[in-house]
Amino acid sequence: MVWAGSSGADCEAEEHIVSEAIRKNFASDNTAPACPEVMAALIGANGGPAASYGEDDETARLEVRFREIFGTDLLCFPVTTGTAANALALSALVPPYGAVLCDQSAHIACDEAGAPEFFTHGAKLLPLPSADGRITPDALREAIAANREGGVHASPARAVSLTQTTEWGTVYPIAQVAALAAIAHEAGLAVHMDGARFANAVAHLGCTAAEASWHAGIDVLSFGGTKNGAMAAEAVLFFDTARAEDFLRRVKRGGHLWSKQRFLSAQLLALLEADLWLRHGRQANAMAQRLAHGLRRLPGAILPFPVESNEVFVVLPEAVVSRLETSGFVFHRWTTPPGVNGVLIRLVTHYATEQADVDGFLGAL
Amino acid sequence: MVWAGSSGADCEAEEHIVSEAIRKNFASDNTAPACPEVMAALIGANGGPAASYGEDDETARLEVRFREIFGTDLLCFPVTTGTAANALALSALVPPYGAVLCDQSAHIACDEAGAPEFFTHGAKLLPLPSADGRITPDALREAIAANREGGVHASPARAVSLTQTTEWGTVYPIAQVAALAAIAHEAGLAVHMDGARFANAVAHLGCTAAEASWHAGIDVLSFGGTKNGAMAAEAVLFFDTARAEDFLRRVKRGGHLWSKQRFLSAQLLALLEADLWLRHGRQANAMAQRLAHGLRRLPGAILPFPVESNEVFVVLPEAVVSRLETSGFVFHRWTTPPGVNGVLIRLVTHYATEQADVDGFLGAL
Amino acid sequence: MVWAGSSGADCEAEEHIVSEAIRKNFASDNTAPACPEVMAALIGANGGPAASYGEDDETARLEVRFREIFGTDLLCFPVTTGTAANALALSALVPPYGAVLCDQSAHIACDEAGAPEFFTHGAKLLPLPSADGRITPDALREAIAANREGGVHASPARAVSLTQTTEWGTVYPIAQVAALAAIAHEAGLAVHMDGARFANAVAHLGCTAAEASWHAGIDVLSFGGTKNGAMAAEAVLFFDTARAEDFLRRVKRGGHLWSKQRFLSAQLLALLEADLWLRHGRQANAMAQRLAHGLRRLPGAILPFPVESNEVFVVLPEAVVSRLETSGFVFHRWTTPPGVNGVLIRLVTHYATEQADVDGFLGAL
Amino acid sequence: MVWAGSSGADCEAEEHIVSEAIRKNFASDNTAPACPEVMAALIGANGGPAASYGEDDETARLEVRFREIFGTDLLCFPVTTGTAANALALSALVPPYGAVLCDQSAHIACDEAGAPEFFTHGAKLLPLPSADGRITPDALREAIAANREGGVHASPARAVSLTQTTEWGTVYPIAQVAALAAIAHEAGLAVHMDGARFANAVAHLGCTAAEASWHAGIDVLSFGGTKNGAMAAEAVLFFDTARAEDFLRRVKRGGHLWSKQRFLSAQLLALLEADLWLRHGRQANAMAQRLAHGLRRLPGAILPFPVESNEVFVVLPEAVVSRLETSGFVFHRWTTPPGVNGVLIRLVTHYATEQADVDGFLGAL
Repeated sequence: MVWAGSSGADCEAEEHIVSEAIRKNFASDNTAPACPEVMAALIGANGGPAASYGEDDETARLEVRFREIFGTDLLCFPVTTGTAANALALSALVPPYGAVLCDQSAHIACDEAGAPEFFTHGAKLLPLPSADGRITPDALREAIAANREGGVHASPARAVSLTQTTEWGTVYPIAQVAALAAIAHEAGLAVHMDGARFANAVAHLGCTAAEASWHAGIDVLSFGGTKNGAMAAEAVLFFDTARAEDFLRRVKRGGHLWSKQRFLSAQLLALLEADLWLRHGRQANAMAQRLAHGLRRLPGAILPFPVESNEVFVVLPEAVVSRLETSGFVFHRWTTPPGVNGVLIRLVTHYATEQADVDGFLGAL
Repeated sequence: MVWAGSSGADCEAEEHIVSEAIRKNFASDNTAPACPEVMAALIGANGGPAASYGEDDETARLEVRFREIFGTDLLCFPVTTGTAANALALSALVPPYGAVLCDQSAHIACDEAGAPEFFTHGAKLLPLPSADGRITPDALREAIAANREGGVHASPARAVSLTQTTEWGTVYPIAQVAALAAIAHEAGLAVHMDGARFANAVAHLGCTAAEASWHAGIDVLSFGGTKNGAMAAEAVLFFDTARAEDFLRRVKRGGHLWSKQRFLSAQLLALLEADLWLRHGRQANAMAQRLAHGLRRLPGAILPFPVESNEVFVVLPEAVVSRLETSGFVFHRWTTPPGVNGVLIRLVTHYATEQADVDGFLGAL
Repeated sequence: MVWAGSSGADCEAEEHIVSEAIRKNFASDNTAPACPEVMAALIGANGGPAASYGEDDETARLEVRFREIFGTDLLCFPVTTGTAANALALSALVPPYGAVLCDQSAHIACDEAGAPEFFTHGAKLLPLPSADGRITPDALREAIAANREGGVHASPARAVSLTQTTEWGTVYPIAQVAALAAIAHEAGLAVHMDGARFANAVAHLGCTAAEASWHAGIDVLSFGGTKNGAMAAEAVLFFDTARAEDFLRRVKRGGHLWSKQRFLSAQLLALLEADLWLRHGRQANAMAQRLAHGLRRLPGAILPFPVESNEVFVVLPEAVVSRLETSGFVFHRWTTPPGVNGVLIRLVTHYATEQADVDGFLGAL
Repeated sequence: MVWAGSSGADCEAEEHIVSEAIRKNFASDNTAPACPEVMAALIGANGGPAASYGEDDETARLEVRFREIFGTDLLCFPVTTGTAANALALSALVPPYGAVLCDQSAHIACDEAGAPEFFTHGAKLLPLPSADGRITPDALREAIAANREGGVHASPARAVSLTQTTEWGTVYPIAQVAALAAIAHEAGLAVHMDGARFANAVAHLGCTAAEASWHAGIDVLSFGGTKNGAMAAEAVLFFDTARAEDFLRRVKRGGHLWSKQRFLSAQLLALLEADLWLRHGRQANAMAQRLAHGLRRLPGAILPFPVESNEVFVVLPEAVVSRLETSGFVFHRWTTPPGVNGVLIRLVTHYATEQADVDGFLGAL
């Protein structure tokens, strides 16, 4: 059974969700509200006038804080959306005539409406097949070799983008990230990590932020905040600071430089305070484990991927799925591979998901 | 004396402002905090889960509210920054090989780091000279004729962009907007209005929002919120709704579609409630009038432009300007035209500027 | 065995060809010289001054001649290269945020260095798998459906591009073209045909130019000349003339509008005279048939695709291939699928290939 | 009187030229036929098969020949049109978010339909005013300073483009080129020269090709062939070879890599043989001098610019201009500045213009 196929239909399609109810929503981590600490930080940042366009105190403190957490020099650029973070980051890594290697399920390839092509001015995304959203070293090596054979007729690969946590909720082991980065660097490619769910990955791996990123060879990281308790805040972190030259110009030109940027930076500062981002990741992961545990005990339920973060994919009978929907539970139906008996759905937990929510869902089954 | 010349140096350059102090800041309306109503709306929108990517209730209500205020059918797209609003709007009006006519002082031409060229995929901005930021009907007619003569060797003008309030703080009379729009439409050009300070213009004109926009022939309006009390919120309003086809795709592709969009729409809803946006505009304008009144009484002070909104440009002796700076007042030095004796500075008031602030400034003189 | 796989390595890579010899060159139809009729036409067009940028007589006559041959109204834009023809054509069919469906082996996807992405300003190419370079109606239907499910998060397909003759030398039956075009039109997609080897296809099908193109639903055709005897000349033909609006501006902006365009049009006129283009196609096809016939008699030779045009793909033992190379024969080694015993090579015949050339090659085996 | 104003209307607009006649055509140097040597070279290059995409012998010899003529290492990329040469060259010098400084009359700004914006992906052209098409060192210094003041809100200038011969037929003295290049390099800007009429400039200056280009600080030169006797051939010459990295990929992606490139290189080789290019330039210049000499003797004729190349601008009474047109002479009417009594026309001579042609024109006056 090919679960993580190459078809666009396997990619995330955020359809209209018409009915909602507190405690019954497993649609996405971006349907959650902002956490109290973020709201408090916004209010705290609103005390008086502040210099505009990133010259404010919050932005300065944010960069310092990120350096502490990652234990290295880095440059930090806060932006509003994950799509902006990814596309802007890639635009700094590949020329317009270049290409980016990524998994066939990657958000940049399937769910960002061509933003990477827009910000890179038409660079190609070259999707690699995988079983579970994780590119293998062999696949990367082969893709680089094939790309080179094309010579001047091909778009030269200049970066690889790894999604950590992947779109299927799986998490790359650190050693695999390091192996992929080594292959990429050896071939002259930069390494980007789409970390929209970076917190969930670090929580799962039980490592430090540094180990999960630049230690393993990541050059640029899209650090996610919105799915992890922020209102709307992500950060592009350059560990390879030379690549950040003129990046602020790209941010501004993309319409992504807030005049009142303190409100963007303040959200991220709140998440970084006392490892809130990591505690959020752990809570979401724990709830997904509880959910998976309950689902595995259901006769006929199939969980095609290991549950390693805050996403649970499960096949259930159509009647069960319909009943859940009728009962007010909110989640996404996914493209079910041909030959599978039942309906593949995705259940997402987040920082605010509680045991009672999971138990309510399992009880309804 | 050419005050509103064509040189890039006349354009806004937001330099580093290192020292700040409450009540002494006249640097920009975007250095102001968010107003209490906006903060309350953010908290109010944070009650529970909400559908993502604009499928939320706040966004639906926002469109309804804008229709009421403008008294017409329209389509509304909230975005984060004025640069995004303008550049996205223009991308819907001109093809990549086209051109946009605008005033030489226009924010789109001078202060957006090439965002219009980015979003339109390389359309040209053709700047027209003016005395005070307001394009004249004759200048527009001539520019359109000259552009046509270029034939296939020129980039065909497909839109004109009017800045209302202009970058020099002047306001187009409604009749002038209507005359320009008529000329543009006659020639097949769409009409965009950069309304980052639309509230100040409407407050000055004493007209309705409709009269200042679609009544006068505006097809698409960038409705400003951030300079008027929001944290970060603007709206692109399509009065010519046919031109909005696929606009949401452009927003998404630009990384400007918030997953938690309710927080964007809620800000604008707060501003629209009980005409708060207009009251803010009036307050800012009144404070600028008070400031201008005081300045005009200073011997040697020159105010090169009529004060019609919340921006006051004034030439003061270098010694006076330096003293103000030393005293902690914050404002921008502008490019002083050659031959002028003194220093041209810009003073900006906003919704939160109080009489005491203005009087403090005037007193320090 | 997957011959026509999705890997970029199956795509055409024009590597350095270091040794060459007349009569032994089967590398490509673009290594052939220009035919005598084309050279004569160039000389004929050089008699005196001529209006520039396409206002010349040859260009006017060319459009008339194309209309006669295709039996319909059309608009004709001569350009220099096939890559320019394809990429410019697509830029008129899809918006920057759109997508083009094509076969995974398509020249536009594999061999044009990102030109379609460049000219369309970043539209996506969505490759469909096929057995032999020919998209099936089912695959097209599924791809359109999957693309729609993506909603605002996907790049909407707005065109399908068919390669006729395909990159594997196969030719779509007219009914298949018509079926694909009907599906596309039903879904609101335009239909482009990459006809770099259109002459070979029409020669194989034994139909008229009209039947092979607009009769079957093609909206825009890249009509190839360079591989068929021209020096450097292709034409973009719009059967859907409404889509050609402003196309000359796109040509000019791409640097593809010759000031002395008569020399471009004259080449195509020479090919259209007395059906020279079609006679060239027939000759090339006949030589490929002769070649295939001889190869099939070799023990161990495998021809993975039906030979329907001027390209012959064949698997031969490494020793045989090396011997041919040593003997001065020039051709391309292709990516041999894993598991195949031997080496896959491509042999291309063209208008100037003679029986003796083919027999010489077969004799050397 | 402002002859070389900033209005687009002063720029070249190639209108329809409906009547033509040998010996009476002064419309443009691109209305001339190809010279016999070029035609002979095309025939000579057509002997047999040749490796494609620039791997041919002619292209290799062309680079060697250019190195001899310019007396330095350089990299050479032949393309079809001057617009392609300029736009491609600029794309290698400025990032998409950057800017190019140029004269307000520059072909890249006025006559290339946005090609520079297309190939650079939206970089801005910042036009500088001048009296006669020649940027002055002071104007360049001021423009660079003003651009810097814009900070992140401006598009940073990264190149300056000089047109040599200018659009007004004037020629920069070498010392002025050197001064401008020094200022540019000091500020970190690259220096491009649009040499569509480079031959005419070198002929006028009486210097070597090296002295007119890299000696004086030019980094990249668009070397014109088409206006100087070729059918369609220009070359981008990189003296700063490091900037040519990946340039062939840009050429290919723009659809400008000929598969049968020998036919492009052969044209340029013919022009370089025995200094034909320079002899052509001298002949065209001499004919323009003869024309100017005759015109100056006419009562009432005004020649607003020094005649230093093959272009003569002259104001004549409307009746005279009309009579010339009626008599079959072909030339362009230019935008006549307000206040000028008469009609400004442009007369262009070229390599094939003969004394009798000039005398015929003068006689008709």
